[in-house]
Amino acid sequence: MVKEIKNGRLYFDGCDTVELAKNYGTPVYVMSQTDIEDKMNAVHKDFLDKYPNTHAAFASKAFCTTAMLKICEKNGFSIDVVSGGELFTAIKAGFPGEKIEFNGNNKQLSEIEMAVDYGVGTFIIDGLQEIPLIEKVCKEKGKKVNAIIRITPGVAASTHDYIVTGKKDSKFGVPLDDDVFFPLVKQAIDSEYINFRGLHMHIGSQLFENDAFVKATNVLVDNVAEIKKRFGADTYELNVGGGFGAIYINEERKPYSFFLDPIMETIYKRFDEMGMARPEVGIEPGRSIVAEAGITLYTVGQIKDVKGIRKYVAIDGGMYENIRPALYQAEYTGVVANKADAVHDQTVTLCGKCCESGDIIIQNAKVPGDIEAGDIFATYSTGAYGFSMASNYNSNPTPGVVLVHNGKSAWAVKPQTYEQLMQNQEIPADIM
Amino acid sequence: MVKEIKNGRLYFDGCDTVELAKNYGTPVYVMSQTDIEDKMNAVHKDFLDKYPNTHAAFASKAFCTTAMLKICEKNGFSIDVVSGGELFTAIKAGFPGEKIEFNGNNKQLSEIEMAVDYGVGTFIIDGLQEIPLIEKVCKEKGKKVNAIIRITPGVAASTHDYIVTGKKDSKFGVPLDDDVFFPLVKQAIDSEYINFRGLHMHIGSQLFENDAFVKATNVLVDNVAEIKKRFGADTYELNVGGGFGAIYINEERKPYSFFLDPIMETIYKRFDEMGMARPEVGIEPGRSIVAEAGITLYTVGQIKDVKGIRKYVAIDGGMYENIRPALYQAEYTGVVANKADAVHDQTVTLCGKCCESGDIIIQNAKVPGDIEAGDIFATYSTGAYGFSMASNYNSNPTPGVVLVHNGKSAWAVKPQTYEQLMQNQEIPADIM
Repeated sequence: MVKEIKNGRLYFDGCDTVELAKNYGTPVYVMSQTDIEDKMNAVHKDFLDKYPNTHAAFASKAFCTTAMLKICEKNGFSIDVVSGGELFTAIKAGFPGEKIEFNGNNKQLSEIEMAVDYGVGTFIIDGLQEIPLIEKVCKEKGKKVNAIIRITPGVAASTHDYIVTGKKDSKFGVPLDDDVFFPLVKQAIDSEYINFRGLHMHIGSQLFENDAFVKATNVLVDNVAEIKKRFGADTYELNVGGGFGAIYINEERKPYSFFLDPIMETIYKRFDEMGMARPEVGIEPGRSIVAEAGITLYTVGQIKDVKGIRKYVAIDGGMYENIRPALYQAEYTGVVANKADAVHDQTVTLCGKCCESGDIIIQNAKVPGDIEAGDIFATYSTGAYGFSMASNYNSNPTPGVVLVHNGKSAWAVKPQTYEQLMQNQEIPADIM
Repeated sequence: MVKEIKNGRLYFDGCDTVELAKNYGTPVYVMSQTDIEDKMNAVHKDFLDKYPNTHAAFASKAFCTTAMLKICEKNGFSIDVVSGGELFTAIKAGFPGEKIEFNGNNKQLSEIEMAVDYGVGTFIIDGLQEIPLIEKVCKEKGKKVNAIIRITPGVAASTHDYIVTGKKDSKFGVPLDDDVFFPLVKQAIDSEYINFRGLHMHIGSQLFENDAFVKATNVLVDNVAEIKKRFGADTYELNVGGGFGAIYINEERKPYSFFLDPIMETIYKRFDEMGMARPEVGIEPGRSIVAEAGITLYTVGQIKDVKGIRKYVAIDGGMYENIRPALYQAEYTGVVANKADAVHDQTVTLCGKCCESGDIIIQNAKVPGDIEAGDIFATYSTGAYGFSMASNYNSNPTPGVVLVHNGKSAWAVKPQTYEQLMQNQEIPADIM
């Protein structure tokens, strides 16, 4: 466990969090390299080492920084990018192009150009009019790209509505209507600028069951067979996406094998039955790699006891640096880092400093009875979609990210400054 | 009306929006100075010119840029800031300190220092432990500040839960319990660093009824009377906050007088009855000044017809530049700017480019049947809490803001660049 309580304080990956708060300031995101690598090792053990011809691409949207992408590279991970900005980060990190997958339901021409220029390994075709854009760029540049086609498997996973992506009513993937899907596959197969390699799906996020995965995998393979039958084309790659659940409060984390064994069994069995060569299989874990590897450190400020109703404990962050409670009703737990071994038996509402009632980090947080201004509160499991969704709401600068590793610490992202907040602002005096 | 349809195109404050899209790129926020000033003029007519000893402070959190604050200054508005970042913006804009009000439920010591240094006109005390912080800073700097105390009037306004702020269960304001409120008022009155001037309330946002305002105003005045009785102290200022509703889809906008006439009548009547001099009265409109003054221009990309279910039209923005539909289920309307006089009779879902199913801008948007890639879509009423809540989700750079005014246009905020996105990122090689 990278979280330990020693001398009454929370330690995280060997670092005293109270000292981190003092040295780096608050609010601050802290990411444990050890925890990230533990999760990556689990992917190796349960998937990459167990099954040949597989790859795991970190879904960088969960936490996209150059340092994180270096950790991916070092640990034998590919990455999945969904925008020009994520690709740019990969380029800055010197990440190998051939190990990048490019997702996205509405890729822009400029993004496709950047990806072709950099030699991105696999395009994941999602839009119905995406192939002509890829062809236009490849023709201009004299290049050919690998591509797989994302389908909408029509399988609803049980999770928050915003992060269900595999059901038929989705902006993602190609609908599996005969007159929509197969002409698109044919277009890819026939294209002189595209090397059609297979199919992709992503059924949702934060999943703890494997039945929807298996069901959707069967839909993938059904279409592999049909593509073979209709066009004589082989499928060399299947990507089953991500969605592997992480622990926020008290979820029971499932090993990667829980999801991937039945998926691999399904794929192998059915490919063997069809007499087709087993395909390369890719996965795209994001949240499950980084969520638990992150904590956020805050300093407690104003405390307001609304008698008979609730005690509000305000911290120096808020919805600008963690929108998930307001956006998804996400729940977190945490600890008063400098009183970590005190009994946490008082229920309070941990709120932020933004001017909005919805600016709540934890609705019912357990804290010691003597919580007071100056205490350091650590929220657990903020490593995914915290930093990556941060805004400047209320003109609050984005907090920095400290990477910790076996007792050492360093900035991975320095905090935004007030000057940076407004570096693009101008007063157009001539028109005002 | 600053929105006009001419030659089949949407014009906004005299500018051809299709040309704006071409010249400035998309996605882009566009703000109409004429519309902003029209709203400010309405505040003058209905409030500032009608009642002596009044002021209106623009709630800068709705849209905080140096250009906007210049428009405030030019139009005789004060501003309300809620953070160091907003205050910093005001300082950069050269906004007069004495016309700044400083709100916030958890003001940081560094923010209070900045405010005292700049000579902020009024502190709005919200936290129960805020006075000692102000005193500490003022003592060090040999200064004294004006302050009013924000109360929680215990009045629930009918609006979205996240933006109801006046009810008793709130992180904002001082609860009106006798043993909490009056000692705090006494502390302010007795402080040698604070000039106690009165009381503040803010009952919520996006309101279209005035009864909660009047009810809460009566609560304010009840406490004015009680403060006089208990401590012999006069109240020189009342601030009734903001919350005046704006039009997003088909709301019926109420004139400022609809809210403010009964409020002023209540205040005058009751102060006259008490034989107390009528106080200065302040308001804090934000959304109602800028919401309708903003549109967002997008370029249409991928179109996906999920047969029998829904047609998805993807634009080149998304929840990173307008989180309000996902966060508050906010609704918008808009128009295809280059086909503005075509019949908009097809219902589609306007979605963004983010990798998330909740990335919807308009669930049921009306568009012409021939909508296609390259069309320019304009979403109306995005001037409040669009830019100010923008994030870099999916590593998308924040769009710029173009100010338009009587046919002229200029950047107020240039778009963020990829380089800027990662200017604070580092790879801490020595610990990795």
